[in-house]
Amino acid sequence: MLHPVVLSGGSGTRLWPLSRQNQPKQFLSLIGDRSLYQETILRANGLPDVQPPVTVCSQLHRFMVGEQLQAIGVTSGGIVLEPVARNTAPAIALAALHVLASDPDATLLVMPADHLIEDEAAFRIAVAHALELARQDWLVAFGITPDYAETGYGYILRGEPLGEGGFRIERFVEKPDLATAERYLAEGSYAWNSGMFLFRAQRYLDELGRHAPAILEAARQAWATAASDLDFIRIDEAAFAASPDDSIDYAVMEKTDRAAVVPVSCGWSDIGSWSSLWSVAQHDADGNRHEGDVISVDTTGSLVRASERRLVATIGVDDLVIIDTPDAVLVARKDRVQDVKQVVDRLKAAGRSEHLFHRKVYRPWGSYDAIGVGERFQVKRIVVKPGAALSLQKHQHRAEHWVVVSGVAEVTCDERVFDLHENESTFIPLGSVHRLRNRGTEPVELIEVQSGGYLGEDDIVRLEDVYGRS
Amino acid sequence: MLHPVVLSGGSGTRLWPLSRQNQPKQFLSLIGDRSLYQETILRANGLPDVQPPVTVCSQLHRFMVGEQLQAIGVTSGGIVLEPVARNTAPAIALAALHVLASDPDATLLVMPADHLIEDEAAFRIAVAHALELARQDWLVAFGITPDYAETGYGYILRGEPLGEGGFRIERFVEKPDLATAERYLAEGSYAWNSGMFLFRAQRYLDELGRHAPAILEAARQAWATAASDLDFIRIDEAAFAASPDDSIDYAVMEKTDRAAVVPVSCGWSDIGSWSSLWSVAQHDADGNRHEGDVISVDTTGSLVRASERRLVATIGVDDLVIIDTPDAVLVARKDRVQDVKQVVDRLKAAGRSEHLFHRKVYRPWGSYDAIGVGERFQVKRIVVKPGAALSLQKHQHRAEHWVVVSGVAEVTCDERVFDLHENESTFIPLGSVHRLRNRGTEPVELIEVQSGGYLGEDDIVRLEDVYGRS
Repeated sequence: MLHPVVLSGGSGTRLWPLSRQNQPKQFLSLIGDRSLYQETILRANGLPDVQPPVTVCSQLHRFMVGEQLQAIGVTSGGIVLEPVARNTAPAIALAALHVLASDPDATLLVMPADHLIEDEAAFRIAVAHALELARQDWLVAFGITPDYAETGYGYILRGEPLGEGGFRIERFVEKPDLATAERYLAEGSYAWNSGMFLFRAQRYLDELGRHAPAILEAARQAWATAASDLDFIRIDEAAFAASPDDSIDYAVMEKTDRAAVVPVSCGWSDIGSWSSLWSVAQHDADGNRHEGDVISVDTTGSLVRASERRLVATIGVDDLVIIDTPDAVLVARKDRVQDVKQVVDRLKAAGRSEHLFHRKVYRPWGSYDAIGVGERFQVKRIVVKPGAALSLQKHQHRAEHWVVVSGVAEVTCDERVFDLHENESTFIPLGSVHRLRNRGTEPVELIEVQSGGYLGEDDIVRLEDVYGRS
Repeated sequence: MLHPVVLSGGSGTRLWPLSRQNQPKQFLSLIGDRSLYQETILRANGLPDVQPPVTVCSQLHRFMVGEQLQAIGVTSGGIVLEPVARNTAPAIALAALHVLASDPDATLLVMPADHLIEDEAAFRIAVAHALELARQDWLVAFGITPDYAETGYGYILRGEPLGEGGFRIERFVEKPDLATAERYLAEGSYAWNSGMFLFRAQRYLDELGRHAPAILEAARQAWATAASDLDFIRIDEAAFAASPDDSIDYAVMEKTDRAAVVPVSCGWSDIGSWSSLWSVAQHDADGNRHEGDVISVDTTGSLVRASERRLVATIGVDDLVIIDTPDAVLVARKDRVQDVKQVVDRLKAAGRSEHLFHRKVYRPWGSYDAIGVGERFQVKRIVVKPGAALSLQKHQHRAEHWVVVSGVAEVTCDERVFDLHENESTFIPLGSVHRLRNRGTEPVELIEVQSGGYLGEDDIVRLEDVYGRS
């Protein structure tokens, strides 16, 4: 059986200020309404005779993964939580162990969560070819037929043809310089290394055991104590942390003698920067891509993205990237966007948080948005999902007012439990043990006014939590 | 006696998105902490033997004028409210009538509220010269000695010297083309028309009566029913609206045979655009002017202004103007900022409000800021000044929750009047007659959560108002 494995590894900052550590690229809606992760899941789910997709992601992103899966109505084949990041070889080993537990003959289709594929039909044909090769015990990489001399990707040189549209891999080559990339393009036997693979799960583990036994051993140890919790699969942190940090390319594909490549031309992009997003997005007649509320005068070749309830106006500018978010706006020359890293480094060095979180924060129970801050108060807009509950908690330094603006909230405040309807409010004194719950079928939306001398998120004592956070 | 008259006429949009119809350029803190209006008032107030300054402003801006005067602790010589805009000749006539009522021998120093003067000592010397000429019954214009060939100003050609550093005015000339401006600069006998004047009040009215009798007549009629209300002086709208719309230049200065000019070089600028603000502001070593929270990488020659609690990051851009406000951000090439008018025109055509109001709105009693909006609710952060009160009012379509976060609010809700302390809240049901008042000495800050099917500002029935708005 074919089991898609979606690797949600990246925590990249190249699309800052839209991507943040707690909401990296794969969870953003960059083109269209769905995130790259959701598109990847749906693409996998659309393959013939496919099992529910397995996701391997950071512990940090588990609720976002759960929510995004739910939003597209796809049944999960399991969400394996990495307690620490150890690159792709260990992550795929976890997925293989997970899938083999229920299907000893499983085949894995490994896909990074943050890539764009425009031509799904071409992709499906390539998968069919790769499946044939996997049955012959090949470990198949998908190679993207280059359409220009890209210097930002690794390449795969193909060797003898294997039939089924595949080739033996002659060798992997590192990111080339421009002259080399141009030669690769002209020669026609090189493909971009897409990071997508297809192979039998057991075969992968066998090769991993042969070429990188420490990785396999660490994955097995970590897996030995795996525990399920809803769709989440938690593994042993210390054991997994002991694994070498390595990619499947280095650990397995470059070493095995059964590496194959299936070249494919499917409108693939890894959207590695704002300029590459601009390249793959549709433009207007002036070469602009506008998202949101934008007024532009004599503007060309620019990517302009306005955040909700804000207007971005441009006059007489060319080849810019303008990305507006609730707490930060980036204005960069399109050919300099790789230097967004410098901005993020400065934020890190200054101990700031604009690279870590958005103003709006997703939680397992819903979300909150810090819409107003004053000297001794903070205002949050809180949404609690149907059936969800915040932890039973108390604060040492702040009191809270809640005003319900839609839905019915069940409020616990010390000994009392009561319903709060639309247009009703309540007060949670400092130190009171309280909880907010939504027993209804519609989201509860409320305004929270916090007051006190210290209003940090870490002033919270969780006494009880349905999401395992207490 | 010398009476400064500050004309707060402009409602310009050339500094959009910072300037809005309800807060035009003169009320903005563009350089330093004080607004151009406050700087103008303080400059006038620093002259020797001077009377309290008179302000002529739009009815729309009366509370902002009052508040800005109070903030700098300057006693007002009266705030004359123009019910409609009729240009400078009628506005100065009103000021003359006002001042003559108490000082028949008054001399007026007329100053636009939105100009910058860097060298106040030079300005004071010029005023002393102009005073001497005014005593000899001259109507004196201040001419700015040009330091480059500006095509955006009108010029004054000087004639025979009159002593006291002044000259008879030979003629006024319109904005020249560049070649003409360069010739004016080379010839040395031309000065920029600054819009500042000094003359005896009675003399001005006499000349106005001679050369533009309809204006004088309309001003007299409007003045006949003038009524004082605090510092505000209200005149008859219909009578004033009947006045021709004309500038002092056209109506009086170009026609009288007693026009003089005092040339002065005092670091004057009218800050007519973002690029001219950039020009007069201090720059860093890369030619940048940053205001607020800005991180810039390889950026040169740019004016970047971040609004409160927002970060602006720039990478690899040159000669841009980036102006961030809570609801709109402008990114323009510095030499194209005059086209901000096109953006404003589009906003007007679309029936939008980003050219009219800021998200934060000043009221006579304080301010409110619409920090959050949802489908059926709105959250406002409200500040009520000490001693101030909102009108006694009710709403047909919305209920309100108030949570006090600092200070003590006196709340009227139908029959009840009670104090609401920090951390207390109350609910104003739909249709209830209510009022918020601050009887204390510190500002009251509160969070208002409105809920209802219609949340427009026009859903208000004012039953009683200390500011004459009911």
